[in-house]
Amino acid sequence: MMPIKKIIDISWPVTPDMTAYKDKKEVAFKHVATFQQDRYRKSTITLSAHAGTHVDAPSHFVEQGVTIDQVELAQLMGPCVVLDMTQWSEKITAGDLEKHDIKKDAIVLLKTKNSFFSATAPFDPNFVYIDLTAAQYLADKQIKAIGIDYIGIEHHQPGHETHEIFFKNGVAIIEGLRLEDVEQGKYFFCCLPLKVIGLDGTPARAILLVE
Amino acid sequence: MMPIKKIIDISWPVTPDMTAYKDKKEVAFKHVATFQQDRYRKSTITLSAHAGTHVDAPSHFVEQGVTIDQVELAQLMGPCVVLDMTQWSEKITAGDLEKHDIKKDAIVLLKTKNSFFSATAPFDPNFVYIDLTAAQYLADKQIKAIGIDYIGIEHHQPGHETHEIFFKNGVAIIEGLRLEDVEQGKYFFCCLPLKVIGLDGTPARAILLVE
Repeated sequence: MMPIKKIIDISWPVTPDMTAYKDKKEVAFKHVATFQQDRYRKSTITLSAHAGTHVDAPSHFVEQGVTIDQVELAQLMGPCVVLDMTQWSEKITAGDLEKHDIKKDAIVLLKTKNSFFSATAPFDPNFVYIDLTAAQYLADKQIKAIGIDYIGIEHHQPGHETHEIFFKNGVAIIEGLRLEDVEQGKYFFCCLPLKVIGLDGTPARAILLVE
Repeated sequence: MMPIKKIIDISWPVTPDMTAYKDKKEVAFKHVATFQQDRYRKSTITLSAHAGTHVDAPSHFVEQGVTIDQVELAQLMGPCVVLDMTQWSEKITAGDLEKHDIKKDAIVLLKTKNSFFSATAPFDPNFVYIDLTAAQYLADKQIKAIGIDYIGIEHHQPGHETHEIFFKNGVAIIEGLRLEDVEQGKYFFCCLPLKVIGLDGTPARAILLVE
């Protein structure tokens, strides 16, 4: 492995007051041992499988889709490109992606206006999303994974078309990245979800490596 | 980044019936949306900060110790050495480590007999642990991190001396690795804990990369 010059943490801080999908708070910490009482500390964490930075499993929206433990880690690691999409306010379409050079097996992270929300802001139902034309465009490019800077990847699409297109084409979906401080460019991406078995997704830590 | 030949997942599968410290079960899954009822699936996960593969923060046992979000990710990534310690049945001591070449800034993973327990076996209070002499030996070598193949790193040491020595010398502690199928040798280690803020530890995913 080449020496790593810099690690850029692009994960959402997990706190009880973090932004939650439709504001249904789903993170809680419980202190089961405290230093005052027990001379050590121990906590329990409750969190949605889709809290903050997380990987969606196909089983989230596809009836026969595989669960998160069957998403290959190789899909969540490798060369990646961060694309600056901050000029768009509603959604990302195929046309917005065409000027970029997107290669087969790339990991594509879209930096949008979403990145400028604070990590504890109320849920914004009008977050910038990836519409089905952009999803089809990226699926046709045979990318490995797509990442976006909000805790959802689509809305206003009742059939979850964006998720479905990605899942049916083997594109892994990472939601809840924090890209505010990341410039457009090439990086090495590493995202490791917890090894939970049988679920529809799980929180993860995601980083960019600069060599 | 060099092309990755192989990813070896050395993480403990997270399930409600996984081995738990002193058998105090602390993992639960809740299905808040199901395909039958809602046409999608969504789950909530409850787990101990010290369940399965996890990183301990100094604040776990040191009153003024930093919390998990302040453990540098750079300490949890880099060249590592897996040492075969499967001949020892009780504990690992300084003497057991002396024949190995352990370098400054290494990440040292100890493969012991613990690796042969199943992931859902009852808790074994006599797991092979790292005694304070071994901890001091490794701290003196100025390693970056220590990893062990059980959900604890010590027992029979009422002052938690092993933890304290590592924490006070800036050695990160990763517990709950699964090394059964890993041979002694050199690898590239990557462990990413969840970005939980303010706690005494957190579950993580850990892998070895072969180039």
